[in-house]
Amino acid sequence: MELWYTEHHSDYVHFSLKVKEQLYSNQSDFQHIAILDTYEFGKALVLDGCLMVTERDEFIYHDMIVHVPMATNLNVKSVLVIGAGDGGTIRELCRYQGIERIDMVEIDEMVVEACKEYLPQTACSLEDPRVHIYYEDGLKYVRRKVAEYDLILVDSTDPFGPGEGLFTKEFYGNCYNALTEDGILVNQHESTYYDAYVEAMKRAHHRIKETFPIAKVYQAHIPTYPSGHWLFGYASKKYDPLTDLQEEEWNSLELRTSYYNTKLHRGAFALPNYVKEQLNENE
Amino acid sequence: MELWYTEHHSDYVHFSLKVKEQLYSNQSDFQHIAILDTYEFGKALVLDGCLMVTERDEFIYHDMIVHVPMATNLNVKSVLVIGAGDGGTIRELCRYQGIERIDMVEIDEMVVEACKEYLPQTACSLEDPRVHIYYEDGLKYVRRKVAEYDLILVDSTDPFGPGEGLFTKEFYGNCYNALTEDGILVNQHESTYYDAYVEAMKRAHHRIKETFPIAKVYQAHIPTYPSGHWLFGYASKKYDPLTDLQEEEWNSLELRTSYYNTKLHRGAFALPNYVKEQLNENE
Repeated sequence: MELWYTEHHSDYVHFSLKVKEQLYSNQSDFQHIAILDTYEFGKALVLDGCLMVTERDEFIYHDMIVHVPMATNLNVKSVLVIGAGDGGTIRELCRYQGIERIDMVEIDEMVVEACKEYLPQTACSLEDPRVHIYYEDGLKYVRRKVAEYDLILVDSTDPFGPGEGLFTKEFYGNCYNALTEDGILVNQHESTYYDAYVEAMKRAHHRIKETFPIAKVYQAHIPTYPSGHWLFGYASKKYDPLTDLQEEEWNSLELRTSYYNTKLHRGAFALPNYVKEQLNENE
Repeated sequence: MELWYTEHHSDYVHFSLKVKEQLYSNQSDFQHIAILDTYEFGKALVLDGCLMVTERDEFIYHDMIVHVPMATNLNVKSVLVIGAGDGGTIRELCRYQGIERIDMVEIDEMVVEACKEYLPQTACSLEDPRVHIYYEDGLKYVRRKVAEYDLILVDSTDPFGPGEGLFTKEFYGNCYNALTEDGILVNQHESTYYDAYVEAMKRAHHRIKETFPIAKVYQAHIPTYPSGHWLFGYASKKYDPLTDLQEEEWNSLELRTSYYNTKLHRGAFALPNYVKEQLNENE
C-alpha cells in the first residue's frame, strides 16, 4: 500500500508526503488531530488538515519563535505561551535558567496528550516545574491579566479555525495590557505567499502596529509550511529587536541551536521588497 | 479534465501544481523541455521534470543571482552567463548601463526558442545589442578564455543532467582563469534540504573554496524550488560581498526590484547553523 498525506497550500498547489503509518487520529471539541509517521520528515502533527510540526524541521520554527525575543531581552522572567500544544516552544524556553515561570494556555488538551505520547521530541519539557498548563481559550485567559508577563508567545494555528480569535485587535490589546513595561509579544504571522495566508498576515501586522509602538516582522525558511517562507510578528513596548539585541550576552550562554544564531537574527528582519510592500499596504 | 504537474522533491515528497494547459513539449538533444500554464504560478518552464522558472516567482531567483554580485562591484563591464536559456538573468543584467558586453553560453538552443515564444517576461532582453549568444557547452567555452570577464554567472540546471559538468573542479578552475583580477563568480548552488540536493551543494562549495580565496554562500526563499530554501555560491578573487558592498552607490541607481535590497543582501549571507555545518563538513 502507498499512503500519501496531501496538503492544499492553495486550490492549485498541493504538497504531499509519503506516510509509513497513521499513528493517531481523533476529533476533539475544537479540531481534527492526526499524527502521521512520514518517510521524509519523521512524525508529524496535523491539525484540521494542516501540518503543524514535523520532527525533522520543527527546530526552525521553535528556534525562531523563542530565541529572537529572548536574545533581545535576556531578563525575561515570566512567559505566557498561547497554543503550543506540541511543546516545542516550551522546550526551547526551558533552556533559559533565568526564566522563573511559564504559563501555557492551550485550548485543546487532546493535542497535548497526543503529543506527549507520540512526539516526545517536542513535548519533553512539559513537566518542567516552571511550566503551568491551563486548558482554556487564550483569548479569554489574557483578558484577566495585567502587567504580568515579560514575554507572550502566540504559537497558534492559522486564523481559519480555533486560532481565529488570536488574530484580532482585541486580543493584541489584551496582550499589551498583560505585558510588563519590558514586554515583548511574538506571534506566528503566516506567510508571504498564497492569497489566504497573505491576507491574514497583512491584517495581523496592521492590528499589531496599531497596538504596539514597536512592531516588526521577521522570516524563516520552513520547508513543510506553505511556500517555505514563514513570518513571525515581533512587537514590544520598549525593545527594538535589532538595536537592543544582546548579541554577546546571548552567545555567552552557549546554547546550541540548529537554526538560530545572532547574525541570522539580524538577517531575519531584512525582508524582501515585495513583503515590505505587502506589510505597508494598509498604511 | 483536471491536469496536475507533480515534481518529486525526494522519493517521499511531491509538489503539485494545477495546470491549465501544456503549451509546449519537446525533446532536445540534451533534455526534455516543457512549458506549462499553471493556475497559481503562471507559465512555467520545466526541464527534465524539474521546474526551472515560473512567471510568478522568477523575480526572486533572478534578483538574487544578478544584483548580489553587481552591488558588490558596480564597475563590472563584461559578463559571461552560462545557461540561463530563459533569459531572466540577462534581463536583470541589461538594466545596468555600465555593462558593455554580455556573452551567454547556452547548450540548448531549443530552450531559448521555447522561452522566446512562451516566456517573453524573462526572454525580453535577449535581443539587447550587448548580448551575444553562443550555443555550445559552457564547460568547453570557458576553457578557452583568459582574464576576459569581470563577472561569471552560472545559471545552470541541477548537476544531474546536462548541467553536471558545471559543478566540477575543472570548471571552477577554468572560471577562475577566465575572470579578470576583479572577477566574481556566482552560481546556483542547490538546496539545504533533501539529500540529493544537499550532497550537490556540499561538493560545489568544497570545490569552489579550493579554487577562490573568497567563497561564501547566500540564500533566498523560492517557493517553487525544493524546500523553498535555495542557495547561491559567491566566489571572488578580491571582493568580499559584505565588506565591499557598494550600498549607497547601488541604491543611488534607483533600480526597482521586487525581492532584492541591500539590507536583504547582508541578511542573505547569514545562514542557519545547520547549513553552516553542512558547508563545513568537508573541511
